Amino acid sequence: MTLLELATKARDAKYVVASLSTEEKNKGIFAVCDGLIADAGLIIKANAIDMEKGKEKGLSQGLLDRLLLTEDRIKAMADGLRQVVELEDPIGKDVENWQRPNGLDIKKRLVPIGVVGVIYEARPNVTADVFGLCFKTGNAVILKGGSDALESNIAIVNTIKAALAKCDLPVDAITLIEDTSRESTKEMMRLNGYIDVLIPRGGAGLIKSVVENASVPVIETGSGNCHIYVDSEADIDMAVSIIVNAKTQRIGVCNACESLVIHEDIAPKLLPVLNKELRSKGVQIFADEKARNLMEGSGKATEQDFATEYLDYIISVKTVSSVEEAIEHINKYNTGHSEAIITKIEENANKFLNGVDAACVYVNASTRFTDGFEFGFGAEIGISTGKLHARGPMGLMALTSYKYTIHGNGQVRK
Amino acid sequence: MTLLELATKARDAKYVVASLSTEEKNKGIFAVCDGLIADAGLIIKANAIDMEKGKEKGLSQGLLDRLLLTEDRIKAMADGLRQVVELEDPIGKDVENWQRPNGLDIKKRLVPIGVVGVIYEARPNVTADVFGLCFKTGNAVILKGGSDALESNIAIVNTIKAALAKCDLPVDAITLIEDTSRESTKEMMRLNGYIDVLIPRGGAGLIKSVVENASVPVIETGSGNCHIYVDSEADIDMAVSIIVNAKTQRIGVCNACESLVIHEDIAPKLLPVLNKELRSKGVQIFADEKARNLMEGSGKATEQDFATEYLDYIISVKTVSSVEEAIEHINKYNTGHSEAIITKIEENANKFLNGVDAACVYVNASTRFTDGFEFGFGAEIGISTGKLHARGPMGLMALTSYKYTIHGNGQVRK
Repeated sequence: MTLLELATKARDAKYVVASLSTEEKNKGIFAVCDGLIADAGLIIKANAIDMEKGKEKGLSQGLLDRLLLTEDRIKAMADGLRQVVELEDPIGKDVENWQRPNGLDIKKRLVPIGVVGVIYEARPNVTADVFGLCFKTGNAVILKGGSDALESNIAIVNTIKAALAKCDLPVDAITLIEDTSRESTKEMMRLNGYIDVLIPRGGAGLIKSVVENASVPVIETGSGNCHIYVDSEADIDMAVSIIVNAKTQRIGVCNACESLVIHEDIAPKLLPVLNKELRSKGVQIFADEKARNLMEGSGKATEQDFATEYLDYIISVKTVSSVEEAIEHINKYNTGHSEAIITKIEENANKFLNGVDAACVYVNASTRFTDGFEFGFGAEIGISTGKLHARGPMGLMALTSYKYTIHGNGQVRK
Repeated sequence: MTLLELATKARDAKYVVASLSTEEKNKGIFAVCDGLIADAGLIIKANAIDMEKGKEKGLSQGLLDRLLLTEDRIKAMADGLRQVVELEDPIGKDVENWQRPNGLDIKKRLVPIGVVGVIYEARPNVTADVFGLCFKTGNAVILKGGSDALESNIAIVNTIKAALAKCDLPVDAITLIEDTSRESTKEMMRLNGYIDVLIPRGGAGLIKSVVENASVPVIETGSGNCHIYVDSEADIDMAVSIIVNAKTQRIGVCNACESLVIHEDIAPKLLPVLNKELRSKGVQIFADEKARNLMEGSGKATEQDFATEYLDYIISVKTVSSVEEAIEHINKYNTGHSEAIITKIEENANKFLNGVDAACVYVNASTRFTDGFEFGFGAEIGISTGKLHARGPMGLMALTSYKYTIHGNGQVRK
C-alpha cells in the first residue's frame, strides 16, 4: 500500500476510534497486553534480526541497548499499557459550560485530535507505549519508527492489530509505515488533511528536520539545554546536591543540567566544593575566567559551550553579578525546557520564575523532575519545548482537542 | 532594517512586554485610543493614498470598502481598543496547583506566547485590533499587512508607537513589515526562534500558502464550508428561518452556511417552502437529483459544489437517508468550522454532536453564532479551524501559553 492509502485508512479509522467507549478502549489495551506476552517469542525473534543488522552496521552499545528486547522488557511494555488502562479517560468530558443571553447553551467538550503521527528512532518500546496513549484518548496513530528497529516494530504492530481484531476493534487504529526512506518521512510530514499532528521523538537533528519540513502541525519535543542558577544567597549543601543530581543522575536525558550559572558573591564558597564533587563523578568542566580560578582543572568555556546540550559528563559554568544577568544569559541560550534557581531570597526566586522563558522553572529543586510521571500525569507522550497546545511534560490531555457543542431552540443571528 | 533585525528587536521586546502589569498595559492601550483620535487626519490622509492606488489598480468595490478609513471608522477602532481594556487580563494567573508526594509544589501559570506574527490582507482596522489583543496578553506582535493598505498601516503603527513611547512603554511591542514582497513573507514564515506563532487572517489562498510554507507554528483560521442538516423530524418554520439566516444574513463570512443536507423524509415538506424563501433573497441553488425535483429552477450539484465555500448567494443541497449518512457527507466535505443539525430527535442530535468533526457543532441554531463576541469572549483574534492549541472562536486565552513553576526545598531525583 502507498503511504497515502495507509493514511486514508487511518483517517477513516479515526472516526471509529473516536466513538469508542472507555470500556471498549480499555478492553482493547488489555487484549494488547495479553498479546504482547503471548507473542513475546515471535517479537524477540524479530528483534534478533534487527540486533544482528545493528551489530553488523556498527551501532553503538547505547543504541543497541535501546534496541534490544527481552522477555522482561516485553513484560515491562505490557505493564506500562496496564497503567494506561488505569488512567482516567478525558474524552467526552465537558470542561466548560455557559449560557448566552440569547439562550444558547455552549459546552466545551474534550475530543480526540484525530490521527496522531509519531516519528521516532530505534526504540521499539515506544511503539506499544505510543499506541496505548493514543488509543486511550480515541486517536488513531501512524508510526514511523527508526529503520534499525523495523522488524521489531512490524512484530509488535502485528500483535497489536491481532489483539484489536480479536475484540472487534478497528485494526487501523495503528499503522506502521514500513518504508523507512527519507522520502517517505518527508511525504508523511506533508499529509495535511490526513495527519492532524506530528510528534517527533528523538535527537535534535530529527526534531529540526520535522520542524523545517512539516506542513502538518508539529509539537516540538525534547531538546533541553537546561541551566541551574545559584543565587548570591543559597544553601551550599542543597546547591551541591541539586547540581550533582541534575548533572549526573542520568546524563543522556533532556532534563539533565548542562550549564551552571553562578552569582559571583557565592562562587568562592560553592565552586571549590562543587568542583571536587563533580570531578569525583567524572564530570569535565568548561568555565568562564572567574569560575576557572575557583575550579581547578577546568577548561575554558566558549560561546559554543553555552549553546551545547552535552548529554554527557560535561558541564559549562558562567559567572554573573545579578539574577537579572542570569535570566538574560539563560534566555539567550536555553531551549525552553527546564531551568532552576537555588536561592534563599524570595524576591529573586520570583524574578527568576517570571523572567525565564521555559516550560518548567524550578526553585530549589532538580531539573530532573520534568517528566510526566514525576508530575503525576501517569503517562508521558513527550516533553514539549514549544509554546502552543502543550508545554512541558505531556500526558493524556496533550492528546486531546476540544469542540464546542451549542444547543439552541431556533436562534438566528441578528 | 532587515526583517531579521526587526524580528530581533521584537524578540528582545517580548520580555519587556511580558513583564508589564495589567495597569501598564491598559494605560498603553488607552494612550493608543487617544492617539488614533488625535491622528485621525494623518491616518485618513495616508489612507487616501492607498485608496487612490487601489482604484487605479482596479480593486473591487468590496475590497475598496474594506480598505477605506473614515473618522467614524477610526473612532470605531479606538472604541474596540477601549473594550479590550475592559477585558480581564489572563496573564500571570495560576490555573492549576498541586503538590506531589515528595513535597514539590507545582503551579500551571498563564504566560504570553511571546512574539505573535499576523499576516493579513488589506484591512487596516485589523492593525489596531490585533495590537490591542496581543498587547493586553503581554505579547509583542509582528504584522505583515496587505500591500494595498501599506500607507494606512504605516500611519496607524506610527500612532501606536508614539503613544507607547509617551507612556515609556516598549515601542517594539509592535512591528510592521513594510517590505510587502512575497520573499519577505516567506522569510517571515521561517523565523523560528524569533516568531513564536503565526496567525494568517484572510482568504483560503493566503492560509494555504502559510500552512505549506511556514516552519514557525501556525494557527490555521477562517475557511468555513459550513453545513446545515435537517433531520427526518424537524420544525419546518425553524429550519427555514435558520437556513435563510445562515445563508443570507451575511454572505462573505466564514460561518455562513454553504450547503444544506436534508433527510429524504422531510424533503417534500421543507424544500418547496425553502426554495421560495431562498429565491426571494436571490440565492442560487445547486442540488442533487432528489432535491432538484422539489426545488424548481435549481441547478445540478457536482462534487465540486459540495467542496466549495461559495461566500456568495449560492447554496448546494444534498439528500440523505439517515443522520449517519449526513455525518459521513459532512465529515468528507467540511473544513472543521461550524455545522448544525435541525431536529426534534434528541438521539440524532447527540449522534451529530459526537460524530461531526468540527470546531462548533450546533443543535437547532444558526452557524452564524461562531464568533468571539457571540460566544461572550469579548474579543476575537480569529476562528481556528485547526485542532491544536485553539479551536473555534479565539479570544484572549488563545494568545496565552503556560509555564509550570515548581517550588521545592532541595528535592533531587532518585
